[in-house]
Amino acid sequence: MAPTIADIHAAAERIAGTAHRTPVLTCGSLDSLAGAALHFKCENFQKGGAYKFRGALNAVRQLTDKQARHGVVTHSSGNHATCLALAARQRGIPAHIVVPRNAPLIKQRAIAAYGGQLTLCEPTLAARQAEADRIQSATGAVFIHPYDDPVVIAGQATVGLEFLEQVPLLDVLIAPVSGGGLLSGLCLVAHALAPHVEVWGAEPAIADDAFRSLREGKLLANTNPATIADGLRASLSERTFTVIRQHARGIVTVTEEHIISAMRLVWERMKLVVEPSGVVPLAAVLAAPEKFRGRRVGIIFTGGNVDLDRLPWQ
Amino acid sequence: MAPTIADIHAAAERIAGTAHRTPVLTCGSLDSLAGAALHFKCENFQKGGAYKFRGALNAVRQLTDKQARHGVVTHSSGNHATCLALAARQRGIPAHIVVPRNAPLIKQRAIAAYGGQLTLCEPTLAARQAEADRIQSATGAVFIHPYDDPVVIAGQATVGLEFLEQVPLLDVLIAPVSGGGLLSGLCLVAHALAPHVEVWGAEPAIADDAFRSLREGKLLANTNPATIADGLRASLSERTFTVIRQHARGIVTVTEEHIISAMRLVWERMKLVVEPSGVVPLAAVLAAPEKFRGRRVGIIFTGGNVDLDRLPWQ
Repeated sequence: MAPTIADIHAAAERIAGTAHRTPVLTCGSLDSLAGAALHFKCENFQKGGAYKFRGALNAVRQLTDKQARHGVVTHSSGNHATCLALAARQRGIPAHIVVPRNAPLIKQRAIAAYGGQLTLCEPTLAARQAEADRIQSATGAVFIHPYDDPVVIAGQATVGLEFLEQVPLLDVLIAPVSGGGLLSGLCLVAHALAPHVEVWGAEPAIADDAFRSLREGKLLANTNPATIADGLRASLSERTFTVIRQHARGIVTVTEEHIISAMRLVWERMKLVVEPSGVVPLAAVLAAPEKFRGRRVGIIFTGGNVDLDRLPWQ
Repeated sequence: MAPTIADIHAAAERIAGTAHRTPVLTCGSLDSLAGAALHFKCENFQKGGAYKFRGALNAVRQLTDKQARHGVVTHSSGNHATCLALAARQRGIPAHIVVPRNAPLIKQRAIAAYGGQLTLCEPTLAARQAEADRIQSATGAVFIHPYDDPVVIAGQATVGLEFLEQVPLLDVLIAPVSGGGLLSGLCLVAHALAPHVEVWGAEPAIADDAFRSLREGKLLANTNPATIADGLRASLSERTFTVIRQHARGIVTVTEEHIISAMRLVWERMKLVVEPSGVVPLAAVLAAPEKFRGRRVGIIFTGGNVDLDRLPWQ
């Protein structure tokens, strides 16, 4: 099931004061390039450097004391893992994070820096799930899925709630799509509160499961896509697909070159550090300007966690 | 002569609506590192990517139509040059920019992109001044000095005016010092409006003319300092030295390593692109924490113009 708008309002209340109410910035020179009035919701400034903190914090906070006692567990090496570790530390409970043995050291260190307890496993989905299951049985920790969970989706949806409060007159909301937690959350918020707002997803052309799934009308998956947008390699679940299929206006796909050039534009023109996955919606607006021209477009900059020693234009 | 507080208020009015009122951001993890409550005035978000736009715009706008008719001229390859070009374009007058032949191509391109008319010269101070004089005589353009000009200082001082409005309870203001336009402007604002606020300068140890000048009680110059803080290579003028000597609490010097590590911290923790010169005050607060511990410190992030192909940690 998807969360209701009441669940989303409850999530907003649950995370208020701990998650940042991130600012919305604008940029005249990017408006000129796009021919549209762009508004950027800066979740790169969120705690943990990504909107994922919202879903993780909502999930951790809604546990009863009894449920929370043995901590939480997930498998991920990305922003969900660091943000879950941070949210768990906030509540004073352990976070067990299963990470594939070949995950970059910088990501392993970030998880550990936020107090996450790392368990390395073989780099296959089966091994990751098996290890997470084992930890769950051994410790009693609660499994928190990165996106296929109504509580997590409700947390991510608070981005949309805030954005519509901060910029009430948006015509379009556009966000990256990977597992679909954020995009389905935005769909639910817009449908309930601002049904005139078109919600778009954006994804790398080489990780275009959402685009293909919508076109074919059935859930299709990515297989190991090597996009530099390393946060966008997952595939939709039945739960997120159902919502997106019903409420999203469409999915725009972009090339790796579009992503790198949008990222460089954001760093040079806006002076903001946004990660490759986070600039994919801007890349989409610049790659398909006819869809957005003359409109008030709300773009989610989803995160800013970048390895500064390996920038994609080097 | 230095500008009066009335001149500074007039400058604020003159540039309002065109120069951005830049936001002030905070960062919990940098507060913990510094042991102080840090407030960052983000002039990296200013038009032209630097606070220099304020002084340039004030200078261009206060010209009479008759004076402005033949444009403006300066010699610089840094932020003053790009910002003066932008301010002149705003008024629809030419900006002649004398640039040393060996200035990085990326900077020459930035000046040209803002409509500046480039004249290349030999890379000596004498050649630069001679070429600027020649253009002034030939065209009737008005020379706008990067810092040794009360109108420019009044423009830069508006950073301090805004900052004190945005964060009224600051204990300390700290800014980079090169020619001293910004620092002397902040001194004048604090002295007139908030005399309890300590004003500090920060500069690279290998370009420490302000530190040495204050210590010796006489104006001393840098000679070709090779600091990576490329905006901080100039030396104080008699005008700026007089103000700084009278009102600044002191100057903190930092090593090149301090600068690089502060820059990386800002990019990683705050997700902001700030140039090496712009992080020097934060580097100073981290290098001399005993001076600032437990206090409310206002730091100016002066600019964000960085060559993304040559980052200092590479």
